[in-house]
Formats: sequence, structure tokens, C-alpha cells
Amino acid sequence: MTLKVSDIGEKELVRYIIANSKDITPDDTAVTNFNGNNLISTCDMLIQSRHFPEKMSYFDMGFKSVTVNVSDLAAMGAKPLGFLLSIALPKDLELNSFKQIIEGVLSACNYYSIPLIGGDTNEASEIIISGTALGFCDKPLMKDTYNIGDLVVVTGDIGIAALGFNLDSMDNIYVNKVLKPIARLREGILINDAGATSATDITDGLACELHEMKKDGFGFMIYEERLDVSEEYKEISNQLNLNYLDLILHVGEDFELIFTISKDNLKNLDIDYKVIGKVTSSDKVEITLENNIIEEIENKGYEHYVSE
Amino acid sequence: MTLKVSDIGEKELVRYIIANSKDITPDDTAVTNFNGNNLISTCDMLIQSRHFPEKMSYFDMGFKSVTVNVSDLAAMGAKPLGFLLSIALPKDLELNSFKQIIEGVLSACNYYSIPLIGGDTNEASEIIISGTALGFCDKPLMKDTYNIGDLVVVTGDIGIAALGFNLDSMDNIYVNKVLKPIARLREGILINDAGATSATDITDGLACELHEMKKDGFGFMIYEERLDVSEEYKEISNQLNLNYLDLILHVGEDFELIFTISKDNLKNLDIDYKVIGKVTSSDKVEITLENNIIEEIENKGYEHYVSE
Repeated sequence: MTLKVSDIGEKELVRYIIANSKDITPDDTAVTNFNGNNLISTCDMLIQSRHFPEKMSYFDMGFKSVTVNVSDLAAMGAKPLGFLLSIALPKDLELNSFKQIIEGVLSACNYYSIPLIGGDTNEASEIIISGTALGFCDKPLMKDTYNIGDLVVVTGDIGIAALGFNLDSMDNIYVNKVLKPIARLREGILINDAGATSATDITDGLACELHEMKKDGFGFMIYEERLDVSEEYKEISNQLNLNYLDLILHVGEDFELIFTISKDNLKNLDIDYKVIGKVTSSDKVEITLENNIIEEIENKGYEHYVSE
Repeated sequence: MTLKVSDIGEKELVRYIIANSKDITPDDTAVTNFNGNNLISTCDMLIQSRHFPEKMSYFDMGFKSVTVNVSDLAAMGAKPLGFLLSIALPKDLELNSFKQIIEGVLSACNYYSIPLIGGDTNEASEIIISGTALGFCDKPLMKDTYNIGDLVVVTGDIGIAALGFNLDSMDNIYVNKVLKPIARLREGILINDAGATSATDITDGLACELHEMKKDGFGFMIYEERLDVSEEYKEISNQLNLNYLDLILHVGEDFELIFTISKDNLKNLDIDYKVIGKVTSSDKVEITLENNIIEEIENKGYEHYVSE
């Protein structure tokens, strides 16, 4: 049988690239020494049928294409330097829709104070927006440089977009999070300054990110009660016949940051945050449920939930 | 009537982006001051149905995706720093084909001494490869900083790929140029060091690039005899019922550099080159034909010849 790319999945394809290049450090972004400074660079491609929900406006598509890239800078604790845009459009797209996409891109660049420094257009059968974000920082926040006993902290509620994907109604916090996610750029810089030991952004779900962060001999214990799930969230999930904890653990697209930090350094941090667990020596990714039962968290996520 | 993006064309779309961003300097790449150094960055997206001829191998697709980006670094006279790869693949692509693309990318990165520092994969209905090249240089070679009297010089034969697009046979210099174009990275650096006054790479055709380089009050005179068109080239064009000068002026995809330089500085330049004309004060882009008749060169090019 001839193997297809779909047989091994996108994460394995990326692993193949990494394994074959001696110059890639697998983390949220590349880190390049440039005259004694760390240049941070990352690129991410969004494809209409996979990454833009049907109800998303052209403006929001443009905005999101900046957000997903800037979120990777945030995950490194980097400051923004510049954004490059490569965009492919169907021939028959209305000119006005193109202008709205660009307006969304520029609005996001303005919001994150990252200048749009280059742009290129192309033709394709659907809208494809490939962005590159450049940034810099003294000490990039890698994914796995934590210590046992560090706290596991997030910058906001997890699972908000996950629920939003399942709602038809508009104009609620869940759907808003799907349509206009915001990267935690400012928070990433402050987290880095406060002495966080590692960080990443939550795109593929809490479970996936924890497994990405995990290194041999170390583990994580998450406490369900610390996730602070609202009664409303549980009720809506229930009405939709969805397991609320599955939504929170295995979907993602919130673009919140998850980071590790010592108790002492957390005191210096002046942003909203939620301590949800700690780094352990268990060699497992676990959760203590509200009923005190401990379960392992599976390494399962919706790589691209929108289209699946 | 509602305007579509196809009604105004890709160059106009890019102009729209540039006009709406205060931070874009329109040239081959972005130039960003980074702690007193010039960071050079550029991104280019290649789409299977538009940029990869049918007979192109997967390896060559990967190679070309690096070449088109590195060629923009070359056009600035920049040294390479790093390459980021974002690739989208059809679900049913054979895994082996994916591996050949990556082999092509890595082979090109090795050839140009530009490390592959990041990679990302995605799913799409056809192969889409978006690359970002990062580089640096003290004094970037812009497109329009030439002086009257400067020589107009190219790094090699122009129109080779143009003829190749029209040939069904394989394994000749014309088709080889189409399948495996090479960026003039080394030459760009040497040209810059020698004191060239401006440069760009020839992707959309000699005519297009000259018009891109043109500034008010300045012009170019190109001499047909200096283009040094071989008898073979003229004969094959003739057999195909194609005007050889049209091929040379209006197609592109050679990835040679065109640059301006003073006669004195040209003496310092130790690469193969061909002087094809000079910078004038005519405010026109002109050519002196072999019969000594002078004609204006139209601003007409095949933005994406392969699919049209």
C-alpha cells in the first residue's frame, strides 16, 4: 500500500521536516542569533475552508491571519518587529472583500503594534493567507525549560472557542472568541519579564499543548476546579450533548498562553491569570477531577477543528 | 458592476496594500532596522497550478520554492540568514512525494547556505508552498537609486526560461531553466560589494523590471545586439512562430539579476555579466534594435506565465 500524507497526519509531517533539518529548534518559532540578538521568526498559513468558519467576515479573516502569527511571538515572550503578508485569492472575489481582508490585517497590525512591512498577492481557488511574524527578545521562552514544582498558569479561560464552534447563535463570548481571537502579546512579554520558565500558546487544545511541553521524567498535574468552569459553560455543553471537559482539553483555538513559573516569580506578574496546576515528576500528564479522581490526559486534539 | 480582484490584477492589489500601509517600502524585500543592522525579509507563495509546470518533479518544486525567495535576497545584495517553510498538501498526495519536496527544499537551502529554521504543514486542494527568506546586509540595493550614465547589466542570458515554457522536449538549457532556476545569491553580494547603484531580479520579464526600476526623469536604453541572442534561440523561436524579442522582453522567470553600476565600479566585479544598456535622461524605457531603429519597450509582462 502506498502511504498518503493523510495517513500520517500533519504533526508527523512536521516531525519529518524537523528530523531532516539540523537547523530547526522545534518550538513555537525559530530563534536565530543575529549580531548578538535573538531574532524570532514564525510563519503560519490559513486556508479558508479549514481555518475560517463560514460566518467569519473578511475583516476578521485578515485580523486572524495576524493573530495566529503574533500568538507564536507571544508564546516566546518576544516583542514585535514586523509582519509579512502573502495572500492568494480566487479570481472572482469581489475587490471590496479583498479590501476588507487588508483592513483586518492592518487593524490587527495596529492593535499589536507590529508594522506590516511586506505584501504579495496571488491567485488560488480559495482564500489563503500566509503570514510571517518577526520579533526579538533577550531570552526566548521555550516550551520545556520548566522545573519540578513550577506552577502551571494560563492567561485566561480555556475552551471558550471550543464551545463557540458548536453554537449557531452569534454575539456571545464563545462565538466571538472563534471569530476574533486575540493573541496575548503584551502578556507574553510581561510573563517573560517576570521570570516564567517556559510557555506556549494554546492552539490545538490544552491536552495537546501539555503533551508538547512534556519532557522525560517530568509531568503535569492539572486541577479541574482550578479551570473554574462556569455553570453556564457546563449547561450549554450539556444541552449540546457535549462533554464540557472534552471541549476544554481537546479543542483549542483560544490563543491563550500556558506558562510555567515559580511561586515567587508569579508574585511579580501584573496581569490576569489562572493557576491551573503544577509541574510534577510523575512523567504523566494528569488531571485531578472535581470528584478527586485522578485521570491521565490523553494526547488528543483537533488539529484543525473547523473543517472536521 | 461589482469589481472583482481579477479586474484590477495582482500588481494593483499589491499597490493597494502598499498605499494603505505606512511601513512598506516597495522594493524586492522589506528592510528593517534591527539594532543598527538591516534585516532583510521577503515571502513568496508558489501554487502548483500556477507556478509549477506539469513536468516539474516534486524535488524541483521544493527547490524552486527556496530559489524564488532567495532571489529576492540576491536582488538586495543581502547575505542569507534563514528560511521558513509553510507548505499545504492535498490529503491524497503520496508520502513519498512530500519527502521529495522536502528533499528539494533542503537541497536548495544547502546550495544557498541558508538554514531551514522553521516548517509548518497544512492541507489544501493543491500543493502550496509559501517561503520566507531572511537575510542581512549593510547597504541594501534598492531598485531605483541609479544615476544617469550608469551601465545596465545582467548576470546571464535573458529569455532562456521563456523559450523553455514553449518546448515539449526535455533536457535542453531552456527547459532546464524552467524546471530548476537558480538564484544569483553569490552574484548579488558581489555586485553590492563592487558598488552597484541598484538591482532587482528578473521574474516578470526584462520589460516589467525596467519599468519597475524607472523613476521620473530617468530612462533606460537597451541595445538589442548587447542581448547577444544566439542564432539557435532565434531559429527555435521562429519554428514556434514566436517573436524572439517578445520572449526576451516580456516573459521572465530567469531569476537573473539586472543591476546598474558605474563603468569604473564594473571593473571591480569578478563575475560573468553582460552590459545590455545604460541609464538615460529620456524618461523612457527604450531599445535600440539591431537595425538601429529605436523603439519604446512596453510595460507588459506575463505575471504568471505558466498558467496563462
